[in-house]
Parts: sequence; structure tokens; C-alpha cells
Amino acid sequence: MKIAVDAMGSDARPVPDVQGAVEAAREYNIGILLVGPETQIRQELKKIGSVPAGVEICNATQEIAMNEHPANAVREKKDSTIVVGIQQVKLGNADAYVSMGHTGANLAAAIFELQRIKGVHRPALGALFPTPQGPSLLIDVGANTDCKPEWLDQFGVMGESYVRGVLRIEQPRVALLSNGEEEIKGNQAVQEAHALLKQRAAKTGMNFIGNVEGKDVAAHLADVIVADGFVGNIALKTAEGIAKMLNELIRSEIKANPISTVGGALAMPAFNKVKKILDYTEYGGAPLLGVNGVVIVGHGRSNAVAVKNAVRAAKRAVEANILAAIRSGVTALD
Amino acid sequence: MKIAVDAMGSDARPVPDVQGAVEAAREYNIGILLVGPETQIRQELKKIGSVPAGVEICNATQEIAMNEHPANAVREKKDSTIVVGIQQVKLGNADAYVSMGHTGANLAAAIFELQRIKGVHRPALGALFPTPQGPSLLIDVGANTDCKPEWLDQFGVMGESYVRGVLRIEQPRVALLSNGEEEIKGNQAVQEAHALLKQRAAKTGMNFIGNVEGKDVAAHLADVIVADGFVGNIALKTAEGIAKMLNELIRSEIKANPISTVGGALAMPAFNKVKKILDYTEYGGAPLLGVNGVVIVGHGRSNAVAVKNAVRAAKRAVEANILAAIRSGVTALD
Repeated sequence: MKIAVDAMGSDARPVPDVQGAVEAAREYNIGILLVGPETQIRQELKKIGSVPAGVEICNATQEIAMNEHPANAVREKKDSTIVVGIQQVKLGNADAYVSMGHTGANLAAAIFELQRIKGVHRPALGALFPTPQGPSLLIDVGANTDCKPEWLDQFGVMGESYVRGVLRIEQPRVALLSNGEEEIKGNQAVQEAHALLKQRAAKTGMNFIGNVEGKDVAAHLADVIVADGFVGNIALKTAEGIAKMLNELIRSEIKANPISTVGGALAMPAFNKVKKILDYTEYGGAPLLGVNGVVIVGHGRSNAVAVKNAVRAAKRAVEANILAAIRSGVTALD
Repeated sequence: MKIAVDAMGSDARPVPDVQGAVEAAREYNIGILLVGPETQIRQELKKIGSVPAGVEICNATQEIAMNEHPANAVREKKDSTIVVGIQQVKLGNADAYVSMGHTGANLAAAIFELQRIKGVHRPALGALFPTPQGPSLLIDVGANTDCKPEWLDQFGVMGESYVRGVLRIEQPRVALLSNGEEEIKGNQAVQEAHALLKQRAAKTGMNFIGNVEGKDVAAHLADVIVADGFVGNIALKTAEGIAKMLNELIRSEIKANPISTVGGALAMPAFNKVKKILDYTEYGGAPLLGVNGVVIVGHGRSNAVAVKNAVRAAKRAVEANILAAIRSGVTALD
């Protein structure tokens, strides 16, 4: 197996990207295709020293910056790491593609180059949301707004395939994010998607558990949480914002007083444990599901561990053949 | 001024409801109409002892339980505290109404009995979201789904009037909740509402600051955050769920080890300070805006302080004449 890795994706590129990819090559015994400026990557590899034989370089001279317009950048920068990296999957030079770069540009390039899987209405971006009991896949978190019920239904199928393959949960619990648990709750699209998913569960054995509410997102009531990309994006970012605010507030209040400063220092291992439990880097990035290829996009602020784990997620997705699972899943009711 | 208070609203009714209302009567020197079973309320007042002269009772013999269907319960229980309480506003016996009871039943009764303000498309429920820098009003948090752009535009007007009157912020920053800061971000309704609010800002001087993202909800970037009720409900409940999960996780990790248990005990004042900063009871409940009357609905788990603060919010809303402000605001562009 060979996985293409965007060497210039992360904010601290190319260090975490190259290091993480090399560690993944070593740990998982897989081939890696580092996509980016050859000279710079060679220098980085030299610093690392002993590099496994399966690590190769695919030259790409341009970068897409975080503030560029996704579609325009992809159209104009044909030799960018993102476009060239995704093309490696299309050309059959790699089995999957991993990038910590511009999410929108990665989506645009993947949809343009790899195309939708036959039968898929809309590719969707999933995000693994950490909870103390394990991660839940929130899908979609921003690739699509104003989703039709049929799209939401398919997000359920694609999320189920991914979680089964990558998190290795045999019967993932699939739920719809709504404003109430009851079947009659939700906006029009969610109510109609509820009926479609119920029907799908009856025919395919999908473990559809109905609606979950916002308060349930952190409670791990479901393994796959289906949402319109507009709603999923707001839920995900609200959660991140609250966690950040609470973290900063607790820190500043602890430091405001000498006794609680001592207390905070003594309790530091507990805080570190909490941080570790909720560490997104464990889960390795967000999959773009529904295109003809395995594509994983991670945070710009990823470190080498996050990159390595994103490569592991890509490897597992290839091993589990999630593309075939999605292909047969989306057409199961036809 | 006289404010009707549902004596049987909270989970621990009638104790917090009656105590909080009596404290409000004393502290704010206002009249209170306690709505509920007369004998039971008299007993409760006797326990309190010295009761201000302005506290009266309005008999109502039925209660609407939390699990009842809102519209059915309101239709069938004509002598419930909720229906009778809201009627006191309609009949002119009270200037405002406060309840810690069933949110849906309160909405249904208020819309049915008080009717929409002329020109208001849809009444909306606001929730004061606590942040370290002060509260933001999130509106709507569940009264309406599939909102049209014109409804969202009016939620901005109603939220602005409430925050100006009750939080006493002269030029509240009004924002739309979206999946990106840029004007072109959002679903169809949000993009169209953006144009309407921009137009409104140009004509009325509203301080419309554009879009905020989910991550900004906790960062107090806006005083009024406008959302479809489906989206607002999910953002609010996701935030509550994350805060609860983090709180429980930190507690359990601190207790998992003797040294961090000591640390946690020393840092307790800091944790209590955080709790106080984010205490929803400070802000006194959620206003239903857009009906012909001041209606404030609080959490079922409210204590007497929360009830007292809800009465204060109602008093301020009456003093600021927010109904007139909403009435003129919603027709400003006609």
C-alpha cells in the first residue's frame, strides 16, 4: 500500500508532515509518497536520518495558502501539493491521500479530480468528535449546506462505512442531529431523512437509533451523527469554542490566587489526562467521503503524531475497502 | 408594576418559585401575582413569614407536566397555572409573566392567548448564553424551524430590543450565526437574511456586525446572535453538553489520584468562580419575543435566585417598553 501525503499541508510545514509520514511508513510498514518541493523534502528527510525504503518523493512546486479561494486556487495552481497529491490517487500511484492543508481546496480538488462515486448525491466531510467514551463521526461538517433528505440519508451510509472500517465498530449506531429526540422533531429535511434512514435500517440492518440532540454530541450516544453541513459545522465549532473558553477560564481563575495556583499544579496530571482523552490528534483528521478515493484532511495545527494517525486512518480505510462499501451502500435501496 | 409568576413552574415547585417571587417583590418594590393553588401558596407564604404587601395570589388549580404535549395540554387545561398566568397579562391584571415551567406549553399558551405583535412573522425564544465577558442572546433557540430570511431579520430586531432594554446595552452588536465569517458563507436563508440585516442596519442604525461562527458563540463577539430555531437549539444544547462533559471529566480525573484530589480541593475556589461566571441563573430565563406581552420562561431546575432574576428581567423589559420597541422595529422598513 502507498499513501500520498501533502508535505506542505500543516501550519509548521514541512516538519510535522514529513516526520509524521515517515513515522507512519516505519510503524505501519507502508509506502509513502511525499508530495511537495523535492529539494526541501530531501533536506527534511536528511535531518530525520534513517528513512524507510518505502518513502518516495513526488515533486510539486506550488502551495495553496489558507486564505486563498478554494476553487480558484485549485484551478490556477496545477502544480500545487494539493492538486498533484490528489492526482496521484487518480493515476493509481497512491491508494489514498492525506493533507493537513486548506480544507476547502482539498475538497474542491478531490471532487474535481476524483469525481463523485456513482450514486452519491454529495460528498461530505466527516469530523471525529472526541468524547471520554471514544469518538463520534459528525458528518457533514461543512461541505454542503441546504441538504436534501436523500443527501442526509447517504451521509448516514457513508459515515457508517467509515466508522466500521476505520474505528472498527461492527454495528455503528447512526443518528440524526435534531432539536429533540422524538421522531416528529426536526426541520423538514431532518424529519424526511428520519423516514428514509428508518426505511434503510429495516432493509439493510443499519443500526439507526433515531434523533440525538445537541447535548448528546458530547455524550457518545451515537457513533455516526448525521447533520446538514451548515448545522454540523456550527455544532462542531461551538463545541470547540466552549472547550477553549472553559480551558482558558479555568486556567486564569486558578492563576488568580496563590493557593489555587498550588492546587492547579498538583492537579496538573488530571488536566493533562483530560487533554489527552479529548485530543483530536488521536483520531487522525477528517475524511472526505463520497469521492472515488480515500481522502483525509487534518487540522492545519497538526503535529507529527496527528499526521501519522491521519495516515493510519487512510490505511485502515483502504484495507476496509470503504469505497466499495459506500458504493454498494448508496445503491442498496435502488 | 405587577408581575404574574407561575407558582408551580420549577421542578422543586412551589418553593423556589414563591420564594424567588417574594424576594423580587421586596428587592425591586413591585407587585407580584402568584399563580397557582391558593391553599398551597398560602402555606408557602406562611413559611416565609414577612411577606411584602404587593404579593397577591391568583388561584389556578391545574398543572402542566413536563412530559405533556404542549398544544394539547394548553387546550385541555384551561385552569392551569400557565394558561391562567398568561391570561393575567392579556386581561391587564399583570404587566408581565414569568414561569419556570414547560417551555413548549408556555410558548403555545403565550402565542394563543397574547397573539403575535402586528407585523411580527414568528415569535422567537431567546436564550442568554453566559460567557466570561457577559451574556449573549441567542435567538431563536427552538420556537421555529425552517426559518425564512424575513423571520431571521426580525429575530435580529427583537433581540436588539430585548438586549437594549434588559441588559442595558445601548448599541447591541447583532450577528448572524453561520459556517463562516464571510458574507457569502451560510445556507440560503442566512445569506438572504444577511442582505436584509445589512439593509436594516443602513436604514435604522442597527449595529449589525455580519456573521459569527460557532467558535465565536463562547467568545462574546456579539450581544445578539440570530439563528434558525433548529440551529440555535443545537448550538445551545451542544454548548451545554460540552460544558457538562468537561466538568464531569475534570472532576473524575481529579478524584482518580490522591495528589490531584488535594490539588482539586485547593483549587476549589477557582472552580467555584468559573461556575459563578457561567451561571445561567444570573440572567433570569429566556424571553419569548414577538407576542403582545412580556413573557419570560426559565429552566425547570431554577432556584429562588434564578426566579428572582427572571422577575428582574421581566421588570426591566416592561420598564424599557420593549413591546413598543419591537412593534416599531419590525415595521421600520415597511
